[in-house]
Order: sequence, then C-alpha cells, then structure tokens
Amino acid sequence: MRFAKGHGTGNDFVILPDPDGTLELPAQLVARICDRHAGLGADGVLRVVGAAVAGYPAAQWFMDYRNADGSVAEMCGNGIRVFVRYLLDHGLAAGPVVPVATWAGIREVRLAAGPGLAAGPGLAAGTELAADTELAADTELTVGMGPARVVGAGSAVVGGRSCAGLAITVGNPHLACLVDEPVAHFDLSCAPLVDDRQFPAGVNVELVRVTGDHQLEMRVHERGSGVTLSCGTGAVAAAVAAAAGAGRWPDGAGELWTVDVPGGRLSVTPDGTNSLLAGPAVIVADGDLDESWLNEQMR
Amino acid sequence: MRFAKGHGTGNDFVILPDPDGTLELPAQLVARICDRHAGLGADGVLRVVGAAVAGYPAAQWFMDYRNADGSVAEMCGNGIRVFVRYLLDHGLAAGPVVPVATWAGIREVRLAAGPGLAAGPGLAAGTELAADTELAADTELTVGMGPARVVGAGSAVVGGRSCAGLAITVGNPHLACLVDEPVAHFDLSCAPLVDDRQFPAGVNVELVRVTGDHQLEMRVHERGSGVTLSCGTGAVAAAVAAAAGAGRWPDGAGELWTVDVPGGRLSVTPDGTNSLLAGPAVIVADGDLDESWLNEQMR
Repeated sequence: MRFAKGHGTGNDFVILPDPDGTLELPAQLVARICDRHAGLGADGVLRVVGAAVAGYPAAQWFMDYRNADGSVAEMCGNGIRVFVRYLLDHGLAAGPVVPVATWAGIREVRLAAGPGLAAGPGLAAGTELAADTELAADTELTVGMGPARVVGAGSAVVGGRSCAGLAITVGNPHLACLVDEPVAHFDLSCAPLVDDRQFPAGVNVELVRVTGDHQLEMRVHERGSGVTLSCGTGAVAAAVAAAAGAGRWPDGAGELWTVDVPGGRLSVTPDGTNSLLAGPAVIVADGDLDESWLNEQMR
Repeated sequence: MRFAKGHGTGNDFVILPDPDGTLELPAQLVARICDRHAGLGADGVLRVVGAAVAGYPAAQWFMDYRNADGSVAEMCGNGIRVFVRYLLDHGLAAGPVVPVATWAGIREVRLAAGPGLAAGPGLAAGTELAADTELAADTELTVGMGPARVVGAGSAVVGGRSCAGLAITVGNPHLACLVDEPVAHFDLSCAPLVDDRQFPAGVNVELVRVTGDHQLEMRVHERGSGVTLSCGTGAVAAAVAAAAGAGRWPDGAGELWTVDVPGGRLSVTPDGTNSLLAGPAVIVADGDLDESWLNEQMR
C-alpha cells in the first residue's frame, strides 16, 4: 500500500492513493496508521479516490477524509491543501484551480499568489499562477471554505478562567473568544467548559488575540481532538471574531487577516458567502506500508 | 534519502540506511525528521552504517543512535532490536546472532525463542532460530544489555507522593520504586523530584508493581524525554528492583521476568554480567524523504 506523509501548519496527514476506489479502509486500520508510536502517525488520513468512481463527475478527485480514530469528517481546510499539493507534486492534477470533491461538496483549491501570500518576488498579490508553475516548498494554496456566520454570543471557562466569545458557524460550530493577553497564557489541556444546551453537538473553542492591523494569534481546542497545532475552520472563525470585535462585521467581510497558529501562519478572508483559507502545504515523504505489518493490523 | 519506520513496544524510530557512512545528519535534520507533526515523527533515529567504515571491524553494522533532539545516545535496547529487524527484513544480515557495533561497544542481538518468548508452537524455550527462519510479525529479538547493579537506596516524589526505591545502574542511572497499587494511578506528567546530589546527571524513574510470579508492570519517566511508552534499560532496572523486593537479588540473577509497559510486553533476565532484554520489533513502512522537503530543512 503506497502512502505519502504531509502537513499544513502542523496539521498532519497520511495520504493513501486509491484512484480506482478499491482500497478497503476500515476504521481500525486508519486508527493503526495514525497511531503516532506503533504506526506512521497523523491527525488523519486523506484517501485520494477517482471522483467519477466515487460518484462525483464534476471533479477529477474525491477526498475521503478520515479522522485519526477512523471516523469520516466532511471537510478539512488544512487537509485539502495537502491533498492538492500531493496531486500537483505527482502530476495527478494541474493548477491554477483544482476542484476537489469532498463529503461537503465540491471545493476549489487555488495555486495562487493570493493577497498577502508569499509567492516569490515580483508577483502581484492575487495573481493566479500558471498551470506549469514549479511549486516551491513554501508555495501556498488557497481553499474556499464556504460561508462564515455569527450565530450569537456565548462563553467558555478555559483553565478556570471565564472567557466571553462569539458563536460562529463555518459549516461546523465554533466559539471564538477574544482575549487581551497572549494566548499561550491559557491552559487548554482540559476541554473548555461551555453551555451544553447552546452547543448540543459540541464546539471548537478558539482563544483569539489581535496582535496588529488585521493580524491575530489563535489557539484552539477541537471537539473530539483536543488541542491541535492548527485548525482551518477555527482560523476563519477567529478572523470573524476579530473583525466583529473591531466593529467591522459583517462590513469587514472580504478583508484579509493574518492568523498565527502554533503550527505556523495562515491567511484568512472571512466572508458570508465563501471564506478563503490560504497557507502552506508540505509533502514530507513517500513510501510503502510494510505488507506483514498491514496483515497484522487487519487480524 | 531512503528511510524505514519501526517500533519496539511503542518506542519508535526512523531508520536511515547509510552503508557507506556518507550521510550528513546534523542535529537539526534529526530533530526535523523526528518532529511528530511537521516531519515523520519518532523517538529517535537509527543510522545504519557499515561498521568497517565507522571503524568497528568486529561487526558488520554500526548503529548510530540519535535522540529526537539530534543528540547522540550510546545504546537503546528497543532501538537495537528494531535496527536488527530492519537488517534481517532487508537481507542485510542473517540470524541467529547479529553482532551490532554501538557507541557503547559490540552488542549481540539474537533471533531466538528465548525462555518465555512467543516463537511459534512446538519450539522449546531458548531454541535459537535458524539463519533462514522467516520472521513473523511477532517474532521476538533478544539483546544483551550488559550488567545491572544495585548501587544504593533512594526516593522520589511522584505527583506529590513519596516513593522509596533502589538506585540501579544498567549503564545509565535508574531509580526503580516498588509500589502496591496499579502504576496507572500515579501522575507522571511532571518530572519526579529526586535528590540531585545523589543523581547529579539525572535519573530515569520507574514505578514498578509486582503483578504475579516473576511478572510486573512498569511506567517510566525518562530523563530528557519524559514519559515514554517503553524503556529497555528501565525494564531491566524494574526486574532487578522486583527481584530485590522479593529478597532474591543478587541470588535471583538470571531469572526471567515478564515486564508489562504501556507500549506492550518485554521479557527481561536481569544479571550482574549481561542482562537480557527480549521483545517484539516491528517495521511499519519504507520510503523516501521528499527531496524538496529535505532541502528546506537544511536551509
């Protein structure tokens, strides 16, 4: 079984090519592959399936995203960039725009010098790169994340401290709390306490501090995963909360924010119609899973 | 750059073949490779060097072991089993005895149905397997760990609780504390407090509970690494402490103990001359590090 390993701002994935959609991938095997000591180790698995095979004729490839426990997730903003980086590196797709089918529908990933993104000298912001552009290690990819909306106010208790926040949906639920001091000061080792009646399906909690003009730092506690180094939808929610805190939401929709997460830097354009998330996507290695190891995991 | 990934009782390693000894491996690159999110992820790196090239004519292969931070370590009981499993799987060595040069000298690894070890039905304990034995996924390997010695008494404060123990050397320093309740009950998230005058170079602290006849469970806090899933020298120290607690040390030298660690099960024969450590060694995957990723790490 071939694999690749990659990451986007520290959110890391094992990529399993499966163009014919024939790969059997039970939850147990995903969990074993994602085990950080007895397996390869990752936050999740990206199965690369031919989209027509998977029943999505509008795209060439379908991203079957699995969480580290083997459960299916609809979309992952860091994962889809790594997915497309893999396609581009292996000649399986060409830029500047790569549509990807996901459980949440078709998402477009752009290989572009998006506003504020590092894409080499002399390149105007927003320039789409040609299909045959050679990707540098730090070339960034932009993905449309769908609409972001403020749905109300809320609060969380984080490490014994009460924090006011905004309930925001980016497809999934967030509670983004603006704070005045460095986000590193907060204890996120335990799940923040929230009002279960307000968030019956759980919630991702972000701590957000504005650090400059359209610039913020964020830490996140993801439902189901705990503290992670980065969260794409969380970065979008953080930018919405920061804009709202400055009295610029929804007027500030479409403005670019720089979002520093523990795993690196993302660029976010929050929007009520289609928010954009841009950032690096890195392939670390390619290889084969050991056949006898695989057999052992399936017993 | 080729690599393999493997583990022994959850202690995991990236293996880098370097028969000619030409691979440049600065500490920074090791640390990046061992990064569990932005790299491949491992507790350490095993560089597989031709022993003659490295100046060790008495063995065919030299194990250049590096900790996850890039520093050199003399020996690793779990690592050397994975090292030899890699050699056997790739036809680079043949059993039943594989001598390996290490920074601590020559160590012998045996592919053997050592006493108490799972090696298939009908095989008498201690039987050495033939050179051409096909390795099963759960075939165990035994390594000579050198002498274990009790050097005195000591105590540690573990998660606010005071524990009496024995100071034991297995090449490196240990404080093995016998406890009466399940070792899972103790909080090892912070380094145990010990007498710095007794252990000026730091110490590995084990919590040890006897769970049956010549059977124990152990958790360990390793100096420099914190809590780990397994520790080969720690398992030897734990068996010495358990034998001493039963009034059978040094008389009980050479007796076999089963040692359960969070990452699996080891078999230990503590001894004043040459302790033996036996356990599984698993190869998970083989592959190539991405060239542009490598270039980026070296900048």
